[in-house]
Amino acid sequence: MPSVTGKKIFLTGGAGFIGSSMTAALVSRSADVIVYDNLSSGKLEFLKPFMKKKNFKFIKGDLLDRRHLSKVLKSNDIDLVIHMAANPDVALGTKRTDLDLNQGTIATYNIVDEARKNDIGSIMFSSSSVVYGIPRIRPTPEDYGPLLPISLYGASKLASEGLITAYSHLYGIDHYIYRFANVVGVNLTHGVILDFVNKLKKNRRELEVLGNGKQRKSYIDVVDCVNAMLHIYSKSRASGNLYNLATEGQTSASDIANMVIAKVSPAARIRYTGGSQGWPGDIANTYLSNKKMLDAGVKLSFKKSIDAVRNGINVCPNAPA
Amino acid sequence: MPSVTGKKIFLTGGAGFIGSSMTAALVSRSADVIVYDNLSSGKLEFLKPFMKKKNFKFIKGDLLDRRHLSKVLKSNDIDLVIHMAANPDVALGTKRTDLDLNQGTIATYNIVDEARKNDIGSIMFSSSSVVYGIPRIRPTPEDYGPLLPISLYGASKLASEGLITAYSHLYGIDHYIYRFANVVGVNLTHGVILDFVNKLKKNRRELEVLGNGKQRKSYIDVVDCVNAMLHIYSKSRASGNLYNLATEGQTSASDIANMVIAKVSPAARIRYTGGSQGWPGDIANTYLSNKKMLDAGVKLSFKKSIDAVRNGINVCPNAPA
Repeated sequence: MPSVTGKKIFLTGGAGFIGSSMTAALVSRSADVIVYDNLSSGKLEFLKPFMKKKNFKFIKGDLLDRRHLSKVLKSNDIDLVIHMAANPDVALGTKRTDLDLNQGTIATYNIVDEARKNDIGSIMFSSSSVVYGIPRIRPTPEDYGPLLPISLYGASKLASEGLITAYSHLYGIDHYIYRFANVVGVNLTHGVILDFVNKLKKNRRELEVLGNGKQRKSYIDVVDCVNAMLHIYSKSRASGNLYNLATEGQTSASDIANMVIAKVSPAARIRYTGGSQGWPGDIANTYLSNKKMLDAGVKLSFKKSIDAVRNGINVCPNAPA
Repeated sequence: MPSVTGKKIFLTGGAGFIGSSMTAALVSRSADVIVYDNLSSGKLEFLKPFMKKKNFKFIKGDLLDRRHLSKVLKSNDIDLVIHMAANPDVALGTKRTDLDLNQGTIATYNIVDEARKNDIGSIMFSSSSVVYGIPRIRPTPEDYGPLLPISLYGASKLASEGLITAYSHLYGIDHYIYRFANVVGVNLTHGVILDFVNKLKKNRRELEVLGNGKQRKSYIDVVDCVNAMLHIYSKSRASGNLYNLATEGQTSASDIANMVIAKVSPAARIRYTGGSQGWPGDIANTYLSNKKMLDAGVKLSFKKSIDAVRNGINVCPNAPA
């Protein structure tokens, strides 16, 4: 029996891409779920399957509206906060430099500070491989340092991790920090697969790929990702937990482009914009170590990066069937 | 010739404990110095020796007053920002949980974002050994991970580092991040030496020491600290720089207590409050590796921790001569 069963869980960003898979996992495990989402990138339609469930409740709310957040938490006796709300668009954070500060760092401060005030015992957080910056060691393990992020999104994830470990130590809150590989799968709202699909629908003859296509990254399926989070939560007896969540291997931007082309518009040619980096703040070569995750007994339905990506393309909402 | 000579330097927190030594070092090296300080913990008397110098200017201002900060930076053609402003009281940050978020993380965001807008080429930042949290490896090198701070002060230093490395990468700003050991010496405004001196002046018979006295830490003299910062700045040709600044060895709380007693009130006895940690958020055993700093050619006047501490007690402003 997974340990979230019967627990009252406050899930921020639960209407988003990864959040909606977490919602599904929690509802199916008979947790008592409150999704708190400002719908800035999340979608109500992702929550439609759960709206009539007795153990599900949606509250439209913003983590930056501290008064509202406080009121909601005060009137509910929460066992666990799962904090997944964030700006999902890394590149946008370079243009609007206060976006990740507000939607990332300050939003995290608000939720952990409310967790302290309301004596909430545990917090789970969706961090990212971007905290590693440009790693010298690949596969990159959890104890890699120094952590020198190269995007404001990465800076906000690192800042959020630090807030969580400090609150955890000072106020006795158990923490589960997960550093995600690139996540793909159902309800995708952003990222390379969707970008390629959308580009090909506009121009069926040519696919523009940012960079030289040799960017290589770790991937994980979204359902595997949330299952891994809950598996570790249910098994761990430690008060502090830090895990990479990733499949084995890497998949290149070229490989993804070719797979999307094969599915969407087989006649299309690739045009590379050139350069080793796709866009400012992008990490061209990420390869997360998943040893610690596997040692904790996490099972993946897609064990290899390429299989997770292939499935991600197959279930991509805008791709033709 | 140190490379700050003739440069226009914007020094935040320049009226504070470490900041005032940086002010002295910059003025003596013929830099063109603007100190920006809200005087929340800094003191105008620390700047008195420089007030009539041609290459020195003091502006009372708060980094959270973005409009004022912006105006000052626009009207000055700054070559280098040295960002030393912060809440200096780690324990206070546990009581007022928004203190380090505002005075640390958001203040840093404001200054780096203004550096971007004003095309300032370099930023130097005073970080801290607290970013390492409770380290498994001692002496702790710069590439240690994971970084799991246990105080909100530590969380804000880690958040600030991440902001600086991200801005550096995205907008082409050279950075110099220095992780300080416990800093002691002239113009001390806080910390264990001053605490002990003040306690003994109230009660000459007994000195209360928080914890069991076995807490052991790295120390560095404040003048050595700022000289090391400027030495590395003048020698490095890298765009990204991360250095621990520390002496060799550690000094225990008991040793400091005995040294302060010998100087201030030789008849006093020590009373330990017990426990391995002095106060929530305190890291009981810190030992920074200073190998990288020494390899960069930094010379220290106090090479050993105990000598830096002894001098710190001798120059402590409230200690009897």
